Amino acid sequence: MAKEVTSRAENYSQWYNNLVVKADLAENSAVRGCMVIKPYGYAIWEKMQHELDRMFKETGHSNAYFPLFIPKSFLSKEAEHVEGFAKECAVVTHHRLMNNPDGPGVVVDPSARLEEELIVRPTSETIIWNTYKNWIKSWRDLPILCNQWANVVRWEMRTRLFLRTAEFLWQEGHTAHATEQEAMEETEKMVNIYADFARNFMAMPVVIGHKSAHERFAGAVDTMCIEAMMQDGKALQAGTSHFLGQNFAKAFDVKYANKDGQLEYVWATSWGVSTRLMGALIMAHGDDNGLVLPPKLAPIQVVMVPIFKSDEEMSNILAKMREIADSLKSRGISYKIDDRDNLRPGFKFSEWELKGVPVRIAIGPRDLENGVVELSRRDELTKESVPQEGLADRIAALLDEIQNNIYAKALAFRDRNIIKVDTWEEFKERIVQGGFLSCHWDGTEETEERIKEETKATIRCIPIDTAVCEEEGKCIYTGRPSHRRVLFAISY
Amino acid sequence: MAKEVTSRAENYSQWYNNLVVKADLAENSAVRGCMVIKPYGYAIWEKMQHELDRMFKETGHSNAYFPLFIPKSFLSKEAEHVEGFAKECAVVTHHRLMNNPDGPGVVVDPSARLEEELIVRPTSETIIWNTYKNWIKSWRDLPILCNQWANVVRWEMRTRLFLRTAEFLWQEGHTAHATEQEAMEETEKMVNIYADFARNFMAMPVVIGHKSAHERFAGAVDTMCIEAMMQDGKALQAGTSHFLGQNFAKAFDVKYANKDGQLEYVWATSWGVSTRLMGALIMAHGDDNGLVLPPKLAPIQVVMVPIFKSDEEMSNILAKMREIADSLKSRGISYKIDDRDNLRPGFKFSEWELKGVPVRIAIGPRDLENGVVELSRRDELTKESVPQEGLADRIAALLDEIQNNIYAKALAFRDRNIIKVDTWEEFKERIVQGGFLSCHWDGTEETEERIKEETKATIRCIPIDTAVCEEEGKCIYTGRPSHRRVLFAISY
Repeated sequence: MAKEVTSRAENYSQWYNNLVVKADLAENSAVRGCMVIKPYGYAIWEKMQHELDRMFKETGHSNAYFPLFIPKSFLSKEAEHVEGFAKECAVVTHHRLMNNPDGPGVVVDPSARLEEELIVRPTSETIIWNTYKNWIKSWRDLPILCNQWANVVRWEMRTRLFLRTAEFLWQEGHTAHATEQEAMEETEKMVNIYADFARNFMAMPVVIGHKSAHERFAGAVDTMCIEAMMQDGKALQAGTSHFLGQNFAKAFDVKYANKDGQLEYVWATSWGVSTRLMGALIMAHGDDNGLVLPPKLAPIQVVMVPIFKSDEEMSNILAKMREIADSLKSRGISYKIDDRDNLRPGFKFSEWELKGVPVRIAIGPRDLENGVVELSRRDELTKESVPQEGLADRIAALLDEIQNNIYAKALAFRDRNIIKVDTWEEFKERIVQGGFLSCHWDGTEETEERIKEETKATIRCIPIDTAVCEEEGKCIYTGRPSHRRVLFAISY
Repeated sequence: MAKEVTSRAENYSQWYNNLVVKADLAENSAVRGCMVIKPYGYAIWEKMQHELDRMFKETGHSNAYFPLFIPKSFLSKEAEHVEGFAKECAVVTHHRLMNNPDGPGVVVDPSARLEEELIVRPTSETIIWNTYKNWIKSWRDLPILCNQWANVVRWEMRTRLFLRTAEFLWQEGHTAHATEQEAMEETEKMVNIYADFARNFMAMPVVIGHKSAHERFAGAVDTMCIEAMMQDGKALQAGTSHFLGQNFAKAFDVKYANKDGQLEYVWATSWGVSTRLMGALIMAHGDDNGLVLPPKLAPIQVVMVPIFKSDEEMSNILAKMREIADSLKSRGISYKIDDRDNLRPGFKFSEWELKGVPVRIAIGPRDLENGVVELSRRDELTKESVPQEGLADRIAALLDEIQNNIYAKALAFRDRNIIKVDTWEEFKERIVQGGFLSCHWDGTEETEERIKEETKATIRCIPIDTAVCEEEGKCIYTGRPSHRRVLFAISY
């Protein structure tokens, strides 16, 4: 390998940390819990943004931008919301520094204290609903379908690159509706868009479901989510969509005049995915050689590595590669010719494997003579000699095949590891091995808490797929009657 | 008018404020100095971002993301930098709130005080150069060409929507180079990209030049800029590109091994444009009826307003409009059919004029019969009856014509208002009327300060166009010898 990465079997967690850093995706910064997203990592995030943004716009949403800061008093207006966020927020108290009167450097100017402290947004429901109040007068002003791409800050004590950082990037949709029905439909529509995106672009199967009351977003009436399974069998919540009822409308007094001229409170949703998806992407598909990127999100889909001894060989091979590059470009396939002259081909192979580039082309002098190239696929680590003729078409088809294959592998793994469990003994035994355990639950928060205390497992979701889950049974923990199975897992 | 806007002649400043709010671009938020960018305004910003991002990538730059927070001690490392930013920054001192022990609401938890305060980035040179330190070992690691799209905060005391806000959105490029020459070339390349963007997309002529030492970015060796002229004759600095020399490399000890293995300090540039460009766009082209958007940045290029009395008329006209819409769509022209049934056509006309939509199509029952439409252009407020046949081609050509016409008008206005002035009496008389005064200056900061004190005018730039500016003369204020003219103006 170009750079040493711990194997998954040895230490999955270490493998992940290694990969993020060594594949040049991100690194820790000098600021506790805040990460630097490096160009290669950011290029993947941009591809995610591009597709999601398109999907949002196709469903009628517009982007807007709301302030980074939230007045402290706003947070308190929705009781559960403040409960959920007050303990982990960055607080701005002053607006000026001054020269240190007692030595070098600068200190906070005590005379520049803010009248009211400002919170760096952990999420924007409060500032947005305070704004919507002025935008909404009548039913004609509804629905409002806004999305915001932004940074948010939650002061997490234990952070991990992409998975849990103090600052992260995300999008947050905030919609306002005239009816409960319409807001509920929006909540479902958006969780379905997230699921589509996860499946079709990230090649990552997900389970769509509702959170239990205990795991809901602070201030939501219902939280829907997509849950993905990582290769260690742990769950990763990859996106959430909240039906907020009239909670924020009531907290910020947002009413509209209906068609009969009567004032009613507005109904709300909010929904978001974040740079956490980068963590999911890495953990869902990576192997011991590095990242495995689905072609649809790979910043470089094809890398070309020349193999040569003399300058003449190099220039002939590079000429051929530029020809291939043109044919790839005309098909919208992204590529890179790795013409660095100070590194051996084997080193380059390892580096591009580490970075997860889906397809590699190598050409040596004999390949050039024979009109062939060596074509390798990252997902299966296989290679074959193929004709230069028709190469771009072959690669276009191969990229599709890789995209599908990565999904199929993840789906097979996931399905193998969703297991129906009906006894508490089996639950305790299996949960430590990872996977989603499909079990009956008595529906009480108390039982949920007990199970978490004893096993660290939480209810990841109550799946919407009733065909699979709805059946009569007995709670795995208390034996009380239950009408449907839910999914338990240990999560990120 | 659909919504009352003060005329430019009456009060230009009020006209601007009205327009921003009434055209639904942005509004003040509940947080002092922070704005809400509304969907229509954000859609224009997105178009700007899209073009700039493409131009950056075409010239080899990649996007990345660096932390929102900067440790207080970092700011102090570059002496001039901290001088420039310490007095206007938001300071995070705590990381937790708690329930108010003395009443309702939440208060800052005194036990959650940060060891070192964090500054919300006013610009990112310090955190980025602290990061680059670990990325750069040898000449092979250079150049680094990163850009970041981000929010920044500068605690301005007097704010105006888009022009001067506490929080604003921008991009900041930060590059690292092996040689002084290369960094200087990068500085120039980027200011030229900004100028191209201003001219070709914003339809806004700019003067490219260098800032005087006094007006330089805090920490730069040289600051280049583009200066645009607003309709009141004031200058607006629309973008800056800084040659930072080795200042930040020295402050953060960033060295690279050159080809001979010797350690040298790295050379730097940084460059940025912000949501301030939105202010420039509005003020450069708007008229008393509202915004005038250049077609290349208009979220809606063509609006269609049906004129009807009966439901049948409406449905026939809308059918025709959908047909036209398809032909526009196939040419990549954006459109909106305004089918609201509760507003009169005249009201709609005014509203879309206010919003600056470049082209309007109106169709009434008689137009439908005669196979024509009424086609209006926003820039000239003229209309004509034209055949439905070949309409999309005609509109495509018209959009180009409007784009060019808007630029030509702004250019003619700008050129009329760049005036050579050679006596102090004339300077004082003319400067209050607006415009750029091209004058000789003795090159001293003292003279610059005096002129500012007496007239509020500053040196906007020392233009790079030597053909126009290089000539011998005498300083307008002191009479001392001068080798070139510089541009003075009162600025936003």
